[in-house]
Amino acid sequence: MSGWVAIAGLGPGDEALVTPEVRAALDAATDVVGYIPYVARVAPRDGLTLHASDNRVELDRAAHALEMAAAGKRVVVVSSGDPGVFAMASAVFEALEAGPEIWRALDIRVLPGITAMLAAAAKAGAPLGHDFCAINLSDNLKPWALIEKRLRLAAEADFAMAFYNPRSKSRPEGFARALEVLRDACADARPVLFARAVSTPQEDLCIVPLTEARPEMADMRTMVIIGSSLTRVIDTPRGPVLYTPRSA
Amino acid sequence: MSGWVAIAGLGPGDEALVTPEVRAALDAATDVVGYIPYVARVAPRDGLTLHASDNRVELDRAAHALEMAAAGKRVVVVSSGDPGVFAMASAVFEALEAGPEIWRALDIRVLPGITAMLAAAAKAGAPLGHDFCAINLSDNLKPWALIEKRLRLAAEADFAMAFYNPRSKSRPEGFARALEVLRDACADARPVLFARAVSTPQEDLCIVPLTEARPEMADMRTMVIIGSSLTRVIDTPRGPVLYTPRSA
Repeated sequence: MSGWVAIAGLGPGDEALVTPEVRAALDAATDVVGYIPYVARVAPRDGLTLHASDNRVELDRAAHALEMAAAGKRVVVVSSGDPGVFAMASAVFEALEAGPEIWRALDIRVLPGITAMLAAAAKAGAPLGHDFCAINLSDNLKPWALIEKRLRLAAEADFAMAFYNPRSKSRPEGFARALEVLRDACADARPVLFARAVSTPQEDLCIVPLTEARPEMADMRTMVIIGSSLTRVIDTPRGPVLYTPRSA
Repeated sequence: MSGWVAIAGLGPGDEALVTPEVRAALDAATDVVGYIPYVARVAPRDGLTLHASDNRVELDRAAHALEMAAAGKRVVVVSSGDPGVFAMASAVFEALEAGPEIWRALDIRVLPGITAMLAAAAKAGAPLGHDFCAINLSDNLKPWALIEKRLRLAAEADFAMAFYNPRSKSRPEGFARALEVLRDACADARPVLFARAVSTPQEDLCIVPLTEARPEMADMRTMVIIGSSLTRVIDTPRGPVLYTPRSA
């Protein structure tokens, strides 16, 4: 079999944040599969077929990529950010494990990218500069009770926290509940970053105390980062800098 | 002031993992500061002064960078991986906060990079594919008791865990103790990844059950990733694939 699958991270949006490794894989590909807005970031060219699909069909998309590679195609599965963080890499391996034995002989690589929390953190300063956790706030694939449990334990551990998928039209209540849990567990006014569409023309950053954070400050394009108890804000003429000291 | 500071991530080692944004900053710089092995990754050229310094002088290095920028230099502070994850960004902001008021007017940017845990995860599969935490196991700047507390709470939350700085010659005991704590808290044979020098010629990956993990499997160039209770290994003709399902 000469086909392969590369599961690649396109980073948060800015082309200057796409690694040369990912660029080379796209240049060598015959087929690109992924969620519609991510495939739209790949320039069309002769010899490249773009397969854009809707959200929530990750397993079908993964199986399609593996099938094409088994047929000799050079397939890039695109995710935004890093493919290994709440993105397509796990879906591809779920499909691999459930699929025909022959797929296991395929050349499958994961090509890392700049994940949203690190792009957002960089724009704001260094809020993830010491121990932290990353939590997907979507309860599409896990029970909400597990999310709440993790929020309480993360607060007790005094981790900074990065939230992916904080809020969507189909899940308007969860993030409001998450903020209530955190206000109860943290009992202070630690800073919270709302970073929307980082590195795109729609980029918008906002830092507020936890006591003033409101659910409607986030949507599906927003990364939310909750400081640890030691996270600080430095006021500068260029705006606030958010960072967590190395001793946190 | 025409000077600036860019705190830039060089990624784990492979040049194909350095973002174009970081490359452009290095091309525009007059001065590069950083830990000796990271500065060694920057090609010398006319008009560029390289300032390499030893480990554990992060604050001095940060102040030096800010001083040079205040004097009009274009300074890149280099870290391996991502500068915002257990690296130089927090040190620069600590120096900024403690330093002269005039520094606050400086143009200071953080340029993200591929951090070690995501490079290691990509090479192994997708072990950080669902909720996870990142913990610095060095107790140089925080008490060991806090590290143990975080390990126990992270196990209770069933996070996958990525450990930076697991073990060094000056701290040979901590990682052994961390493994004991985890074996006690997890009570299962979940997979553990030891990923050394990822994306360099010395790269070496090893996956073992937690029950068989030994302290000497890690050194300062090793990322250690502990699976959650649901992390799985798929056997393939090309070697094991480690991943955490999206429902974890």
